[in-house]
Amino acid sequence: MSYVLACVMQFSQGVNEVKVVARGRAISKAVDVVEIVRQRFMPDSVKLGEIKIGTETIGSGDDQRNVSTIEIQLLRV
Amino acid sequence: MSYVLACVMQFSQGVNEVKVVARGRAISKAVDVVEIVRQRFMPDSVKLGEIKIGTETIGSGDDQRNVSTIEIQLLRV
Repeated sequence: MSYVLACVMQFSQGVNEVKVVARGRAISKAVDVVEIVRQRFMPDSVKLGEIKIGTETIGSGDDQRNVSTIEIQLLRV
Repeated sequence: MSYVLACVMQFSQGVNEVKVVARGRAISKAVDVVEIVRQRFMPDSVKLGEIKIGTETIGSGDDQRNVSTIEIQLLRV
Protein backbone atom coordinates (compact mmCIF):
# COMPACT_ATOMS: atom_id res chain seq x y z
CA MET A 1 0.00 0.00 0.00
CA SER A 2 2.86 2.38 0.71
CA TYR A 3 4.02 1.97 -2.89
CA VAL A 4 0.54 2.93 -4.08
CA LEU A 5 0.67 6.09 -1.98
CA ALA A 6 4.20 6.85 -3.21
CA CYS A 7 2.96 6.70 -6.81
CA VAL A 8 -0.14 8.78 -6.15
CA MET A 9 2.00 11.35 -4.32
CA GLN A 10 4.43 11.62 -7.24
CA PHE A 11 1.59 12.35 -9.66
CA SER A 12 -0.05 14.81 -7.29
CA GLN A 13 3.28 16.65 -7.09
CA GLY A 14 3.20 17.18 -10.84
CA VAL A 15 5.36 14.32 -12.13
CA ASN A 16 4.23 13.09 -15.57
CA GLU A 17 5.65 9.57 -15.45
CA VAL A 18 6.24 6.99 -12.72
CA LYS A 19 8.08 3.71 -13.25
CA VAL A 20 7.33 0.79 -10.96
CA VAL A 21 10.12 -1.78 -11.03
CA ALA A 22 10.46 -5.11 -9.24
CA ARG A 23 12.41 -8.34 -9.20
CA GLY A 24 11.54 -11.95 -8.42
CA ARG A 25 8.47 -12.61 -6.32
CA ALA A 26 7.82 -8.90 -5.88
CA ILE A 27 6.76 -8.77 -9.54
CA SER A 28 3.16 -9.68 -8.72
CA LYS A 29 3.15 -6.98 -6.05
CA ALA A 30 4.35 -4.41 -8.60
CA VAL A 31 1.45 -5.32 -10.90
CA ASP A 32 -0.94 -4.96 -7.94
CA VAL A 33 0.46 -1.51 -7.16
CA VAL A 34 0.06 -0.33 -10.76
CA GLU A 35 -3.47 -1.73 -11.03
CA ILE A 36 -4.60 -0.10 -7.78
CA VAL A 37 -3.11 3.27 -8.76
CA ARG A 38 -4.61 3.37 -12.21
CA GLN A 39 -7.97 1.73 -11.51
CA ARG A 40 -8.89 2.79 -8.00
CA PHE A 41 -7.01 5.98 -7.22
CA MET A 42 -6.43 7.78 -10.50
CA PRO A 43 -8.64 6.17 -13.16
CA ASP A 44 -9.12 9.40 -15.10
CA SER A 45 -5.66 10.89 -14.85
CA VAL A 46 -3.21 8.00 -15.18
CA LYS A 47 -2.79 5.41 -17.92
CA LEU A 48 -0.50 2.45 -18.55
CA GLY A 49 2.65 3.07 -20.53
CA GLU A 50 5.26 0.57 -21.61
CA ILE A 51 5.71 -2.72 -19.79
CA LYS A 52 9.13 -4.40 -19.98
CA ILE A 53 10.32 -7.70 -18.58
CA GLY A 54 13.87 -8.97 -18.34
CA THR A 55 16.40 -11.05 -16.46
CA GLU A 56 19.11 -9.94 -14.04
CA THR A 57 21.98 -12.04 -12.77
CA ILE A 58 22.54 -11.49 -9.09
CA GLY A 59 25.22 -12.79 -6.74
CA SER A 60 28.75 -13.76 -7.74
CA GLY A 61 30.86 -16.91 -8.16
CA ASP A 62 28.92 -20.05 -7.23
CA ASP A 63 26.05 -18.01 -5.86
CA GLN A 64 25.01 -16.58 -9.22
CA ARG A 65 21.41 -16.91 -10.21
CA ASN A 66 18.98 -15.32 -12.60
CA VAL A 67 16.05 -13.27 -11.40
CA SER A 68 13.21 -11.98 -13.55
CA THR A 69 12.45 -8.27 -13.55
CA ILE A 70 9.56 -6.07 -14.55
CA GLU A 71 9.31 -2.36 -15.29
CA ILE A 72 5.89 -0.78 -15.65
CA GLN A 73 5.43 2.80 -16.76
CA LEU A 74 2.51 4.90 -15.55
CA LEU A 75 1.77 8.08 -17.48
CA ARG A 76 -0.31 11.13 -16.71
CA VAL A 77 -3.18 11.32 -19.20
CA MET B 1 9.45 -25.87 -15.55
CA SER B 2 6.56 -27.80 -17.09
CA TYR B 3 5.18 -24.49 -18.41
CA VAL B 4 8.53 -23.80 -20.05
CA LEU B 5 8.42 -27.18 -21.76
CA ALA B 6 4.80 -26.62 -22.80
CA CYS B 7 5.79 -23.36 -24.51
CA VAL B 8 8.84 -24.84 -26.20
CA MET B 9 6.73 -27.77 -27.41
CA GLN B 10 4.12 -25.46 -28.91
CA PHE B 11 6.76 -23.60 -30.90
CA SER B 12 8.46 -26.82 -32.00
CA GLN B 13 5.09 -28.02 -33.29
CA GLY B 14 4.91 -25.01 -35.58
CA VAL B 15 2.78 -22.57 -33.59
CA ASN B 16 3.73 -18.92 -34.26
CA GLU B 17 2.45 -17.35 -31.05
CA VAL B 18 2.14 -18.49 -27.44
CA LYS B 19 0.40 -16.47 -24.72
CA VAL B 20 1.41 -17.01 -21.11
CA VAL B 21 -1.29 -15.79 -18.73
CA ALA B 22 -1.38 -15.73 -14.94
CA ARG B 23 -3.21 -14.25 -11.97
CA GLY B 24 -2.14 -13.13 -8.52
CA ARG B 25 1.07 -14.50 -7.11
CA ALA B 26 1.62 -16.69 -10.17
CA ILE B 27 2.43 -13.52 -12.13
CA SER B 28 6.11 -13.66 -11.17
CA LYS B 29 6.19 -17.31 -12.23
CA ALA B 30 4.73 -16.41 -15.62
CA VAL B 31 7.51 -13.85 -16.14
CA ASP B 32 10.07 -16.51 -15.16
CA VAL B 33 8.59 -18.93 -17.70
CA VAL B 34 8.73 -16.37 -20.50
CA GLU B 35 12.26 -15.31 -19.66
CA ILE B 36 13.54 -18.91 -19.56
CA VAL B 37 11.86 -19.77 -22.87
CA ARG B 38 13.14 -16.76 -24.74
CA GLN B 39 16.60 -16.44 -23.19
CA ARG B 40 17.70 -19.99 -22.47
CA PHE B 41 15.75 -22.30 -24.76
CA MET B 42 14.90 -20.34 -27.88
CA PRO B 43 17.00 -17.14 -27.90
CA ASP B 44 17.23 -17.04 -31.69
CA SER B 45 13.73 -18.11 -32.65
CA VAL B 46 11.38 -16.49 -30.13
CA LYS B 47 10.89 -12.84 -29.17
CA LEU B 48 8.68 -10.92 -26.77
CA GLY B 49 5.38 -9.63 -28.07
CA GLU B 50 2.80 -7.55 -26.26
CA ILE B 51 2.58 -7.54 -22.46
CA LYS B 52 -0.77 -6.67 -20.88
CA ILE B 53 -1.74 -6.32 -17.26
CA GLY B 54 -5.22 -6.05 -15.81
CA THR B 55 -7.55 -6.77 -12.92
CA GLU B 56 -10.13 -9.52 -12.53
CA THR B 57 -12.84 -9.69 -9.89
CA ILE B 58 -13.16 -13.20 -8.53
CA GLY B 59 -15.64 -14.70 -6.08
CA SER B 60 -19.19 -13.50 -5.48
CA GLY B 61 -21.18 -11.67 -2.81
CA ASP B 62 -19.08 -10.85 0.25
CA ASP B 63 -16.20 -12.94 -1.04
CA GLN B 64 -15.44 -10.67 -3.99
CA ARG B 65 -11.87 -9.52 -4.41
CA ASN B 66 -9.69 -8.11 -7.14
CA VAL B 67 -6.77 -10.06 -8.53
CA SER B 68 -4.13 -8.70 -10.89
CA THR B 69 -3.52 -10.49 -14.15
CA ILE B 70 -0.78 -10.59 -16.76
CA GLU B 71 -0.73 -11.75 -20.35
CA ILE B 72 2.61 -12.10 -22.13
CA GLN B 73 2.86 -12.87 -25.81
CA LEU B 74 5.76 -14.85 -27.24
CA LEU B 75 6.25 -14.70 -31.00
CA ARG B 76 8.27 -16.79 -33.40
CA VAL B 77 10.97 -14.61 -34.96
